[in-house]
Amino acid sequence: MAEKKQRSIEECSIWDDARQMLKKARQDGVETVWDRLDRQTPHCKFGESGVCCRNCTMGPCRISKKAPLGVCGADADVIVARNFGRFVTGGAAGHSDHGRDCIEALHAVAHGETEDYTIRDEAKLLRIAAEVGIATEGRDLLEVARDLAAEFFENYGSTKNELSFIGRVPEVRRKLWDRLGVTPRGMDREIAEMMHRTHMGCDNDAANTMLHAARTCLADGWAGSMIATEISDILFGTPKPCKATVNLGVLKEDQVNILVHGHNPIVSEKIMEAVNDPALVQLAKEKGASGINLAGLCCTGNELMMRHGIPMAGNHLMTELAIVTGAVEVIIVDYQCIMPSLVQVGECYHTKMVTTADKARFTGAEHVRFEMHNGAAQARKVVRMAIERYSLRDPNRVEIPEGPVEIVTGFSNEALLEALGGSLTPLIEAIKAGTVRGAVGIVGCNNPKYKHDYCNVNLARELIKRDILVIATGCVTTAAGKAGLLVPEAMKEAGPGLQEICGALGIPPVLHMGSCVDNARILQLCALLASELGVDISDLPVAASSPEWYSEKAAAIGTYAVASGIYTHLGHPPNITGSKIVTDLALSGLDELIGACFVIEPDPFAAAELIDKRITAKRTALGLPA
Amino acid sequence: MAEKKQRSIEECSIWDDARQMLKKARQDGVETVWDRLDRQTPHCKFGESGVCCRNCTMGPCRISKKAPLGVCGADADVIVARNFGRFVTGGAAGHSDHGRDCIEALHAVAHGETEDYTIRDEAKLLRIAAEVGIATEGRDLLEVARDLAAEFFENYGSTKNELSFIGRVPEVRRKLWDRLGVTPRGMDREIAEMMHRTHMGCDNDAANTMLHAARTCLADGWAGSMIATEISDILFGTPKPCKATVNLGVLKEDQVNILVHGHNPIVSEKIMEAVNDPALVQLAKEKGASGINLAGLCCTGNELMMRHGIPMAGNHLMTELAIVTGAVEVIIVDYQCIMPSLVQVGECYHTKMVTTADKARFTGAEHVRFEMHNGAAQARKVVRMAIERYSLRDPNRVEIPEGPVEIVTGFSNEALLEALGGSLTPLIEAIKAGTVRGAVGIVGCNNPKYKHDYCNVNLARELIKRDILVIATGCVTTAAGKAGLLVPEAMKEAGPGLQEICGALGIPPVLHMGSCVDNARILQLCALLASELGVDISDLPVAASSPEWYSEKAAAIGTYAVASGIYTHLGHPPNITGSKIVTDLALSGLDELIGACFVIEPDPFAAAELIDKRITAKRTALGLPA
Repeated sequence: MAEKKQRSIEECSIWDDARQMLKKARQDGVETVWDRLDRQTPHCKFGESGVCCRNCTMGPCRISKKAPLGVCGADADVIVARNFGRFVTGGAAGHSDHGRDCIEALHAVAHGETEDYTIRDEAKLLRIAAEVGIATEGRDLLEVARDLAAEFFENYGSTKNELSFIGRVPEVRRKLWDRLGVTPRGMDREIAEMMHRTHMGCDNDAANTMLHAARTCLADGWAGSMIATEISDILFGTPKPCKATVNLGVLKEDQVNILVHGHNPIVSEKIMEAVNDPALVQLAKEKGASGINLAGLCCTGNELMMRHGIPMAGNHLMTELAIVTGAVEVIIVDYQCIMPSLVQVGECYHTKMVTTADKARFTGAEHVRFEMHNGAAQARKVVRMAIERYSLRDPNRVEIPEGPVEIVTGFSNEALLEALGGSLTPLIEAIKAGTVRGAVGIVGCNNPKYKHDYCNVNLARELIKRDILVIATGCVTTAAGKAGLLVPEAMKEAGPGLQEICGALGIPPVLHMGSCVDNARILQLCALLASELGVDISDLPVAASSPEWYSEKAAAIGTYAVASGIYTHLGHPPNITGSKIVTDLALSGLDELIGACFVIEPDPFAAAELIDKRITAKRTALGLPA
Repeated sequence: MAEKKQRSIEECSIWDDARQMLKKARQDGVETVWDRLDRQTPHCKFGESGVCCRNCTMGPCRISKKAPLGVCGADADVIVARNFGRFVTGGAAGHSDHGRDCIEALHAVAHGETEDYTIRDEAKLLRIAAEVGIATEGRDLLEVARDLAAEFFENYGSTKNELSFIGRVPEVRRKLWDRLGVTPRGMDREIAEMMHRTHMGCDNDAANTMLHAARTCLADGWAGSMIATEISDILFGTPKPCKATVNLGVLKEDQVNILVHGHNPIVSEKIMEAVNDPALVQLAKEKGASGINLAGLCCTGNELMMRHGIPMAGNHLMTELAIVTGAVEVIIVDYQCIMPSLVQVGECYHTKMVTTADKARFTGAEHVRFEMHNGAAQARKVVRMAIERYSLRDPNRVEIPEGPVEIVTGFSNEALLEALGGSLTPLIEAIKAGTVRGAVGIVGCNNPKYKHDYCNVNLARELIKRDILVIATGCVTTAAGKAGLLVPEAMKEAGPGLQEICGALGIPPVLHMGSCVDNARILQLCALLASELGVDISDLPVAASSPEWYSEKAAAIGTYAVASGIYTHLGHPPNITGSKIVTDLALSGLDELIGACFVIEPDPFAAAELIDKRITAKRTALGLPA
């Protein structure tokens, strides 16, 4: 059989920095995600359509014309629904276990078990505590924090049966959830029940299983993720607009380069402090570097960028390529979305991969366990390790793309409100007038099946042209940033209405709202808008989109968005096409049931058209000009 | 392509009742699990060896020589470990969510929220409460029950970080778990963390993932399952030896036949009460039946049999065939191991399938939701439904196999202790003397890949011949019962030592200890024996076996058995053979690490030999005669 032709570098990515590094990777003999994708193509059709079941050893089974039922009797609908249920549960578990780590940090701070972390946003602590019913008046701050940690832990248990933030959900939607039986009880409980339901011989009704998938994801959106976001703000500061830079050009040839990758700021914040430790900076200089340079990747990069303007080296498909620069001493990771290949790519250069969480070890990486009481010390250890490795760098193999791009970041809801002058009224008036016709959150990942960032960027461009405000999180941030859309000057690419409001407020037409868990900020914003307008979230002229998604978390986010009433575009479907019932439910049935559904469209221009149509319909229904 | 030849009826099962009904099924045009297995054979080799990954949409990926890495870079070891982790998590979630339902029932009783359930074993309530540190002296029973429910709920949360029953584990084993980092914290937490770890880019070290799989399963064994068992005893009575009958002959031609199937006694206990309701018995007579006959299937059958001597119609592979008798009016199910095909098989006759749990709906079945406050009323409704359907039965299509087999059931640890005269000393003395050379729990399922019950029965026979006491739970119970091994008279098949002790105590050489969650009874028994002898569980001359397993729960049970120190035989491996690291760990590495491992052997005679060898080695190490 003839060897398959490697795809051209131009087909892989729209970016110069990516292409330059892909060329170098090929010269250096480094295998990348695109090479592996080529070898894994074509994918298994049973897996892609969701009709393969491995949930017991009477199988594995595959549904086909010849074998329309699994050994137990499950049909394609049941199998697809079960697989989808477990798929989104993996995503919900990722976010919510991250949220649990945040609660543990808050608990440790509140109980004086650590000196490495502290309350940075006291006002937010008090505000959130009061919101969830904890007395704050005249109480010691740590006492309030103790109660808040305890309250949040209850969201993961079996006894409370109500999420702390349920009050944020418009009442009309809460009632709908109750009617459908999808009001989430406890985060972990929904996860465990989803795993139980999908065991052989439990839930064998596809629609019923899909409803529980929605419930599990709602717990993710309104508890797991939301708790992660709110505690991160309390512990590390609520983001405010600030400037930063993106692309591989943020790496520095004459400095010790350290990359942080993963999701939880608990590790990356300490690394940031350590790189600013004068003694370590001095050590770096002694080793011949002019300083220590920290840059982010993926969502932990978003967290540091949102709060501190730390530069962002790249998104999901740039993580291997960042190492290919040959200029990275250490890459420090916590968990999620970290390609295991990074260990091997690092070994091709002098780059050491350091893992920090017991739940995310990588064979071949060095493990430096970060715990609540030793975060600062461990961070210094890792930074020292990076400095020591600087001398191992081979200058002849270093090549750093030029020209980092400027961005503005830091649009938490608090910051957005401040930019709006303290209330949502200006935004609501603009929406009513049609100056801003609607808003779309473009979120999620890269996937090598797409030309890297082509859809992310073009969809954002198409929407702002149509006077639709775009909110970016996760890996879409870097895409929008590199395209120059995250600065106020990008308003010139926007339609006249959006241009006007961006000009008046001095904000970009694409607002960076954070990491993947921070999609909870978007949920909260939608809920605030709906409540202000006295309507359900599903009545708003808003949508969500994940054009180049790849992860279980993205599927969970999409599912909680839809179940919260937000029309959600995906570039490609999850592995559900083998079931007509599940596919119909996702693409239309849910619209009747829950007021929103998924729409699948790989082309960003066609997707913009579909989203625009939906926003127009919602505007018309609200009696607003189209 | 030529149609594949259907397997012969003789190949399917060793039992006359099964063969008779298989013949009838073929005549009646009813498809069974064996037909579906034939059509699903050959199975996907990627799935069978565990090297197919569907955890993100960069894939699905399949590891082969051509493509040794997934798109993300995960290798076969990582993929196999992740799949195994999720597989056992499905099982642990099944047991533990069942346990949660039991806690909710205890909570409802304790808080006066239901009149349908009550405390049946007050002494056990007080004993268990005291064991887990709850004050009992002079307190109201329901107050103690309230505290116990609250205590058990904590096993599912994130704050306690210690299981209620951790004190049952020998200290030396607890220390080993601590060293390995596998001491379980909370039930749901381990489940959620396993799902998180197996998300793309989290845990990418196969051994590390396998250790968390062990931790999750330990939470199942020592919390989820154990809590389910203990609360079931408290609410429905602790089993004592009693007589019952097994096989399809327990169905009655002239009575309304009702089958209960599933796992949780909360539903089946109420059905049992309703079939004894004089008004309903009268109604059945008015409809021309001579009475109402209740029989069990699978584990809910075990629960009713253990506590009340309700007859058992059959195990996993008999569930379809029970309906083929044409004599079943209604089959009432809760959850787990219920083939979805039962709905269709029922439709071939007049049999209605009734579902009772919102988390386990079956398309085409009638849903009668059982809740804490309405269990009795719903049960009467279902029994009335069965009576009404009696007239729909076509006598010409009824064929009930003859000759139910007698058994003795009800060997809870409490009952076993009583049989031993109140202490374990006689058993320990017998073990020391070699009269009883050891003990083996044969547990779990059927799987149509094996000749039905051939391995279950022959392994039990071979072991008792060798003076090894056998404990049976789950679907093995029916196998042993039909083979005549669950009566004291079976001692004639045992070796001389076991024969002697069975004769002295009047017990069978194979003791029925309950349902699948009741494997926690076996764990507790092993812990008691180890503590009594002052050794670790892994030092005992004991083993576990699941010769014909099929379910994720069986894999979870096997894993907690091994992690608890019990050498565990399986008839076939889980889908792990695609990873040398994982396979080596399971089959030998764990032995060094944790003092026990898995052994795979499909032939029951060879398996008996291997188990005997292990028991001999353990006896020798303890300084006992081989």
